[in-house]
Amino acid sequence: MLTDLFSPSVQHLLDLAGIFVFAMSGALLAVRKNFDVFGMAVLAEVTALGGGVLRDLIIGAVPPAAFTDLGYFLTPLAAALIVVFLHPEVERITKAVGVFDAAGLGLFCVSGTVKAYGHGLGLTFAATLGMATAVGGGVLRDILAHEVPSLLRWDRDLYAVPAMVGAALAAVLLRFDALDGPTAAIPVVVAFVLRLLAMKYHWRAPRAWHRRSAAREAP
Amino acid sequence: MLTDLFSPSVQHLLDLAGIFVFAMSGALLAVRKNFDVFGMAVLAEVTALGGGVLRDLIIGAVPPAAFTDLGYFLTPLAAALIVVFLHPEVERITKAVGVFDAAGLGLFCVSGTVKAYGHGLGLTFAATLGMATAVGGGVLRDILAHEVPSLLRWDRDLYAVPAMVGAALAAVLLRFDALDGPTAAIPVVVAFVLRLLAMKYHWRAPRAWHRRSAAREAP
Amino acid sequence: MLTDLFSPSVQHLLDLAGIFVFAMSGALLAVRKNFDVFGMAVLAEVTALGGGVLRDLIIGAVPPAAFTDLGYFLTPLAAALIVVFLHPEVERITKAVGVFDAAGLGLFCVSGTVKAYGHGLGLTFAATLGMATAVGGGVLRDILAHEVPSLLRWDRDLYAVPAMVGAALAAVLLRFDALDGPTAAIPVVVAFVLRLLAMKYHWRAPRAWHRRSAAREAP
Repeated sequence: MLTDLFSPSVQHLLDLAGIFVFAMSGALLAVRKNFDVFGMAVLAEVTALGGGVLRDLIIGAVPPAAFTDLGYFLTPLAAALIVVFLHPEVERITKAVGVFDAAGLGLFCVSGTVKAYGHGLGLTFAATLGMATAVGGGVLRDILAHEVPSLLRWDRDLYAVPAMVGAALAAVLLRFDALDGPTAAIPVVVAFVLRLLAMKYHWRAPRAWHRRSAAREAP
Repeated sequence: MLTDLFSPSVQHLLDLAGIFVFAMSGALLAVRKNFDVFGMAVLAEVTALGGGVLRDLIIGAVPPAAFTDLGYFLTPLAAALIVVFLHPEVERITKAVGVFDAAGLGLFCVSGTVKAYGHGLGLTFAATLGMATAVGGGVLRDILAHEVPSLLRWDRDLYAVPAMVGAALAAVLLRFDALDGPTAAIPVVVAFVLRLLAMKYHWRAPRAWHRRSAAREAP
Repeated sequence: MLTDLFSPSVQHLLDLAGIFVFAMSGALLAVRKNFDVFGMAVLAEVTALGGGVLRDLIIGAVPPAAFTDLGYFLTPLAAALIVVFLHPEVERITKAVGVFDAAGLGLFCVSGTVKAYGHGLGLTFAATLGMATAVGGGVLRDILAHEVPSLLRWDRDLYAVPAMVGAALAAVLLRFDALDGPTAAIPVVVAFVLRLLAMKYHWRAPRAWHRRSAAREAP
């Protein structure tokens, strides 16, 4: 199947790893928002699976993969459980979580693009949905947690752009029928590295020209 | 049909009753948020039907039941109309509304589970969607009203857990092919009673261990 | 096809014009919220296409039109780009943008009703989805931007009601098999003019009777 960039079992393991770290960021935000353990489980599930569910609803792949694979469903619960008991320890390794999150971003933007393309969408739309797969869960997480989506804020390091680049690269490879196991690693790694660089050097996107000077510069 | 736990007409009446009280909680929040009558109607519809629409989109039952049954559509409008004219009186019986809401919770978590299972989902996912049917409308209500979802807050009496228990019980009965009219009442009543007890004794879910002491304890 | 009220190419042009002005309102809000250019593009896309995507998911028309027509996808990006570079100029013509937005409202409530009806929904539901097509993007825009949906606030000029009237009129015409190119213009113009009048005379919807006097009257 086209969605399997690598051998099915390797692909599944990578998916679960991405889901795990995304879930962790959801559970950590739930702790910061003072939610209870149930709220942590909900935010973990939504962050990890929300982007893929959105994509599957739009391409008509129902029920979404998140509702047919027990591994996808249980992994976020495991991540939430770890945060429940080891929250201060996890907070201390936020940087490591960020690195894994970048890896999830790279994986999901590519596998999302491939899945959407496999369901007959055009390359531009497949890449858009690939990016949405990677970043959608985080947006739903912030909406549920009643926060301004960190994706849209100018004072956050680039997050969507690396996903966009990875998804676009994957689309180009699909266009030339050149996407298979080894080449699929290219867009994944590019998105991953771009995100790491954005975190290291605090890359940010520009805002509109000539905004009113009154606009507050600091968050 | 599997979705009909009881005789079709009894089931439909119970559905409408659940929809009515859920709609009331939406309309009451709209009044508290100072929305106009149109906003009240929107919040009433979304609170009452949102969970079921989400479930139907995910299991691929389109158009969702809420868009094919006029009774489902008009009942929230009737609830909103009552709140428009009798708002102070309705506020005074908030406790009674809470009891009816608990009944709606019990009904919806079970009928949602049964419907999802009837569409081929596994038992775990059917139970998850059953719970989502019961609590999803309230989450959408809070998001539209620009509030922290009350479902996720630690300082609210248990709401999702009774629905989860009811949905899980229904799934167990489905597993053993033992769900029919009379036995379907068991999970409904269990969820209903658990929710009433949670309200009476202010049961709450725990939060993460070792949260920073700085975290504010009161809302 | 029923969705084409006018000749296909005229209809497409009108659609793109409506999408363009809706996208502009999204991009302008993004500037006011201090989002970066990526956030502007996201809000532009969501505002312009969100209502139609919701409608298409509910009627089961997947992938939604927004994911199959490059024109629909690129137009909001063009609108966002204009706002990026000419933001103060666009702010200065907010009134003109409001007039175009009213035209978009009129077009979308009618074409949304027609499309939903063409997919087999009843007239009441088709009209409801028509209205949702016209106003849904704005609600999603406000949720993403972490604002109280302007649609629900009592202190905003009527927005949903003109769309509702237009959609209902279109449904009546459909009922009597009298909707074709020329007659379709009637509900479009009625919704358009009603919205213009609502803006000019600050028409507002009433709120619940006997709200507590403590409720704050000004935003």
